[in-house]
Amino acid sequence: MTDAIITLTTDFGDASPYVAAMKGVVLRINPTARLIDLGHRLPPQDVRHASWFLAASLPYFPVGAIHVAVIDPGVGSDRAILHVEVNGCQVLAPDNGCLTGFLDAVEGVPIVRRLSERRYWRETVSDTFHGRDVFAPVAAHLSLGLDADKLGPRVTEWVRLPSPRCENVSDGVCGEIAFIDDFGNLITSIPTARLPSGPLECDISDRSYGTLPRVRTYADAAPGELVLLASSTHHLELAVVQGNAALRLGARVGMIVRVRPSVQ
Amino acid sequence: MTDAIITLTTDFGDASPYVAAMKGVVLRINPTARLIDLGHRLPPQDVRHASWFLAASLPYFPVGAIHVAVIDPGVGSDRAILHVEVNGCQVLAPDNGCLTGFLDAVEGVPIVRRLSERRYWRETVSDTFHGRDVFAPVAAHLSLGLDADKLGPRVTEWVRLPSPRCENVSDGVCGEIAFIDDFGNLITSIPTARLPSGPLECDISDRSYGTLPRVRTYADAAPGELVLLASSTHHLELAVVQGNAALRLGARVGMIVRVRPSVQ
Amino acid sequence: MTDAIITLTTDFGDASPYVAAMKGVVLRINPTARLIDLGHRLPPQDVRHASWFLAASLPYFPVGAIHVAVIDPGVGSDRAILHVEVNGCQVLAPDNGCLTGFLDAVEGVPIVRRLSERRYWRETVSDTFHGRDVFAPVAAHLSLGLDADKLGPRVTEWVRLPSPRCENVSDGVCGEIAFIDDFGNLITSIPTARLPSGPLECDISDRSYGTLPRVRTYADAAPGELVLLASSTHHLELAVVQGNAALRLGARVGMIVRVRPSVQ
Repeated sequence: MTDAIITLTTDFGDASPYVAAMKGVVLRINPTARLIDLGHRLPPQDVRHASWFLAASLPYFPVGAIHVAVIDPGVGSDRAILHVEVNGCQVLAPDNGCLTGFLDAVEGVPIVRRLSERRYWRETVSDTFHGRDVFAPVAAHLSLGLDADKLGPRVTEWVRLPSPRCENVSDGVCGEIAFIDDFGNLITSIPTARLPSGPLECDISDRSYGTLPRVRTYADAAPGELVLLASSTHHLELAVVQGNAALRLGARVGMIVRVRPSVQ
Repeated sequence: MTDAIITLTTDFGDASPYVAAMKGVVLRINPTARLIDLGHRLPPQDVRHASWFLAASLPYFPVGAIHVAVIDPGVGSDRAILHVEVNGCQVLAPDNGCLTGFLDAVEGVPIVRRLSERRYWRETVSDTFHGRDVFAPVAAHLSLGLDADKLGPRVTEWVRLPSPRCENVSDGVCGEIAFIDDFGNLITSIPTARLPSGPLECDISDRSYGTLPRVRTYADAAPGELVLLASSTHHLELAVVQGNAALRLGARVGMIVRVRPSVQ
Repeated sequence: MTDAIITLTTDFGDASPYVAAMKGVVLRINPTARLIDLGHRLPPQDVRHASWFLAASLPYFPVGAIHVAVIDPGVGSDRAILHVEVNGCQVLAPDNGCLTGFLDAVEGVPIVRRLSERRYWRETVSDTFHGRDVFAPVAAHLSLGLDADKLGPRVTEWVRLPSPRCENVSDGVCGEIAFIDDFGNLITSIPTARLPSGPLECDISDRSYGTLPRVRTYADAAPGELVLLASSTHHLELAVVQGNAALRLGARVGMIVRVRPSVQ
């Protein structure tokens, strides 16, 4: 039998001992667990970013994987910690909306529980570090085969983020910047399937960028050029070839993006 | 039997090939070793930061773990490399004080050796990269069961950092900023057990911040508010809710922190 | 038998879900694969940096390792993806020159193939994310023992970067800055074997830094001093002791470095 896979996604950064402490807690309970780092420099406390991140990564993992996501500005408050079971995988995450994108992306019907059984937590639980004191030990116990029903009661409601805006308007489509990656590429909420082919006029946050070329991939335009293409998640993406569109345009997540067929 | 766990903590950064080279060297000697990254972006050559990091993470790991820490401004000089055995785990680190916090945090009496037996090192040892040429091969040999007594002689003295300042003063407690995490939270040297409950007046580096609220967790105050709470290591912590206290206050490790009961 | 090792090197950054998606794809095909992160914050699309990184890390790994490097500004274009087999290890990388340093560093004669057989790729291949859709599944299949000849035809030509400049000049040696590490150390293209011992006068990009001391290791000079020493790759290196030479000197990769014996 393959040793259990536990993935870790946090906003803890990599100069702090917090991820390391979580790994220690997991391995002390299950020394055979296989820890997989997904990312630890997500923007601090940015639940919307985490939601996109998890939606674009967790679905690729095999059945049986246990995913732990700790982007948790409400740590220690009465926000719940959720255990989600769907399509054969399990996810632990704070009930703050960070699973919105993931649950939209998967087809199965999730079983959701709210952690309440403290016997699977560390004996002393701090008010500021549930990653170490709740998430890590629960994940480790699950990796040893613990029946999830022992973690706490099933629930049917949880926090959902509003979907990123995307609507048809008179002359085109209006959406928003939904995610900015480390290259500075701007991934919008607009599915490319909703767009006609050909060049588009593009406004961001009411500033017009005129007609932008539609390309298939980055190498189809000259370095420095601002282009439109399909993201790897099938959304309209703005990119600067071999450059950083977010810096160039001063773009931030949530800014309104309007596109319409070019009249040229 | 579970494959051996080797953790890696460095200040090598993640655009450089140094961590990668270390991993290669370990795996060439012991292909079954399980490498666990604790952090590779510790502030360069900051031994004090490393000491806090290791104290707040290594104790959580299971018996049998082998920990390698390379924050090593004295690489290639006559500083020793230490092998420490305590509570069933082993640590390799330069003798520069970076283990001070860890050795204070654990209860057991450590056996400490100074590496001298070159047969467990790479054949050629560079003057500037002992991580690859000494630490990695020695850790790999240990993970295969090498008797640590073969590494070199036991020693009874090693470098210790001065403890962070923390003392009672006429009207309260005087400590210092001992650690700043990636969120910008300021963790002081003052154990919360030494403090009365209730709001405290707080000075940092002779600048007064007036009376600050004591909260249980970040969510107990409004975003942007500067608060006092107990860190996950049970020290007094200053934080800006959903913000970065280090940036807001221009705080640096070592700055003096004075707190006294509020007279309001 | 030891589970297969797959190393990952990318410029994807660690706030983006791209590395995570690749890991998921690998593990779904081969749940026993052992993923080893080499680095994910290589400078974006910097093929020259990647070449140095891979040359200074991949050769340390054991026979049987499978290396995946995705620094790929030409993703989706007609640039090939190469499979390289040499000295018992396998490497997948875009055909953009990023393997130049590695292939120079190893002694064996490589067998090089160009990926063409889509049955080992994901069913749908995006134009912008071959890491997830081509590299990851192919690496996973290789880790299960796939015969590399099934991946595509052997080729005898591939992209090579020009070697960093290094030549004897009338009064010394002229090279360039070949790599800058996370400490800000400047590693030149000049092998130390080509240099006489003793202090050297040094110019960078036509600015003279006068006579610089030659030291064996960083601790042999005072903090803040600019020194010359041998890098762990046996090249001439400029470093600021406990400081950052790249920032101090405003140095960038490619700048010309001239050294000559000091006449003092």
